[in-house]
Amino acid sequence: MSFKPIKIVSMGQYLPVQKVDSASLEKELGLEEGWILKTNGVRSRHYVNAQETGAYMGAQALQKALNRANMQFEDLDLLIDASGSFDFPIPHNACLIPRELGILNAGIPCWDVDSTCLGFVTALDMASYLLDGSRYSNVAIVNSEIASKSLNPKDPKSATLFVDAAIATIVSYCSTDEGKGVLAAGMETYSQGAHYTRVKGGGNALHPNTKTTFSDFTFAMEGKAVMRLGMQKILPFVEKLFSTVELEMSDIDCIIPHQASKMALDFAQKVFKWRSDQMVSILADYGNCISTSIPLALYTAIESGQLQRGDSCLLLGTAAGLSVGGLVFVY
Amino acid sequence: MSFKPIKIVSMGQYLPVQKVDSASLEKELGLEEGWILKTNGVRSRHYVNAQETGAYMGAQALQKALNRANMQFEDLDLLIDASGSFDFPIPHNACLIPRELGILNAGIPCWDVDSTCLGFVTALDMASYLLDGSRYSNVAIVNSEIASKSLNPKDPKSATLFVDAAIATIVSYCSTDEGKGVLAAGMETYSQGAHYTRVKGGGNALHPNTKTTFSDFTFAMEGKAVMRLGMQKILPFVEKLFSTVELEMSDIDCIIPHQASKMALDFAQKVFKWRSDQMVSILADYGNCISTSIPLALYTAIESGQLQRGDSCLLLGTAAGLSVGGLVFVY
Repeated sequence: MSFKPIKIVSMGQYLPVQKVDSASLEKELGLEEGWILKTNGVRSRHYVNAQETGAYMGAQALQKALNRANMQFEDLDLLIDASGSFDFPIPHNACLIPRELGILNAGIPCWDVDSTCLGFVTALDMASYLLDGSRYSNVAIVNSEIASKSLNPKDPKSATLFVDAAIATIVSYCSTDEGKGVLAAGMETYSQGAHYTRVKGGGNALHPNTKTTFSDFTFAMEGKAVMRLGMQKILPFVEKLFSTVELEMSDIDCIIPHQASKMALDFAQKVFKWRSDQMVSILADYGNCISTSIPLALYTAIESGQLQRGDSCLLLGTAAGLSVGGLVFVY
Repeated sequence: MSFKPIKIVSMGQYLPVQKVDSASLEKELGLEEGWILKTNGVRSRHYVNAQETGAYMGAQALQKALNRANMQFEDLDLLIDASGSFDFPIPHNACLIPRELGILNAGIPCWDVDSTCLGFVTALDMASYLLDGSRYSNVAIVNSEIASKSLNPKDPKSATLFVDAAIATIVSYCSTDEGKGVLAAGMETYSQGAHYTRVKGGGNALHPNTKTTFSDFTFAMEGKAVMRLGMQKILPFVEKLFSTVELEMSDIDCIIPHQASKMALDFAQKVFKWRSDQMVSILADYGNCISTSIPLALYTAIESGQLQRGDSCLLLGTAAGLSVGGLVFVY
């Protein structure tokens, strides 16, 4: 692909009010002290309360991003919701967000993209094609995930890993002279792993009005199979991704992997030889936030000053599908 | 927007085996003879059986489209599922489709777009930006909808309107000289109508593991409010859409409205002064197929010879959101 000049103008974060540390979750689930940190690498996480919906969290994050960019909602040309979880089967997520901001009549197009954990990468990749400075000058991407309602206490590995959080990102067209933009992006889907990560019930395959049980509506993950297939596919994928850019992995200033699990992060750091000054890891403090993990790690890197204007950055992850995906850009 | 040179290479259709005429549905629901045709304009429809899933239908339609294009699945650069309904909350729809075709290891990127009934228009619009003849030369769009599992017999108006069907469309990059492509496209979302059409339960707003009733998982529509807002917004939208092209509505060879309802089609034909040789209506034979309606009407127009190569075509519709959207292209 050719260079796509775009600029991440601002980001906004919303974390649910309720913070739950691993010690109290271990008590609740009857797990040994220290089991969660050892197994999943997670120290604490946020869970929504009864008032916090996906649209509410997404709207709060978007308002913060708009404030930082000194923009109004009406300055956007498009709102993409790129979450893997949803408030309602119908309508889709994006149209609920302006409503939460009290904006009922803006006419800004709102639609959803779903590639589960890779949602942000897919949406940013897509935005880089849409942003032409004419029809599209400013696009907002919202990732707002609620995993906590679909956790199964009988499956402590996933019940202590997945969490809730929202991030909004404003991406704008910019001139090629600025040097900011997408250098390369890609995604590969291997449907042999389509059922490795799933919530079985709630759609038409197992409709909620048919005979179901509690666990049908909760996350189920074949963790080892996901790791095996992900490891096998991500190495050639990364090689292909970098074959089209004039940078080596070691040149990248900031590397943002999906915060899938401790095992996945450890594996990736080792196999790709990421230096600790390159890699961003927020798993311990936030858990796996589905599609919000990558933009939340990006937000954290920007806030801490680890990612500076002009730096190169790699987003890289896996998703239910099973997909591998990544994007190299200049911030 | 500038002219986007793309070409609809082929389409494939899958209709569920089970065909249900309105007379038998009227008996089942205790409705007066002729009520459905009079109220909704639907004579017959297809409903899935226990074996037919969204992914199965989408895969069958895609295989037919691939056969017609003399292509293999591996010739695709991207598969977009643009359905409003889904088999599983996780994983998303698109990754299930190659699996249904027995293709487990292709690595073709698969992701979903959701704008409910406007899914095909959104995906075609997006494909016109992606298709660059380099990273993307051939994109498949799949619309596969199962509404029948979410119908509420106590709400006969929607229970006799929404149906099941799938269409796949292969869209390819072509040279500008061919003259085929997208002339204009747009979408506007008015979140005052976000809850006019909805399935309340099944997501995080009303999780299936909380206290729910049968009707929570069925379609509910404030039909009059949808009509009122849709009518108010679609007129200025169409004016704006046509302001950027050198064609008048009366010049368009083939007009494909969303097959929303008899009332919506009658209103649109009257207010836009569509000639009957321009407008495509398949509502009577198929019902409202959610996002499949527009591509199914397009497929029907191509099959019947109503839409010929080189003809201009308008896709136009409304969607839950509430959104209005449209696209003008040369076939």
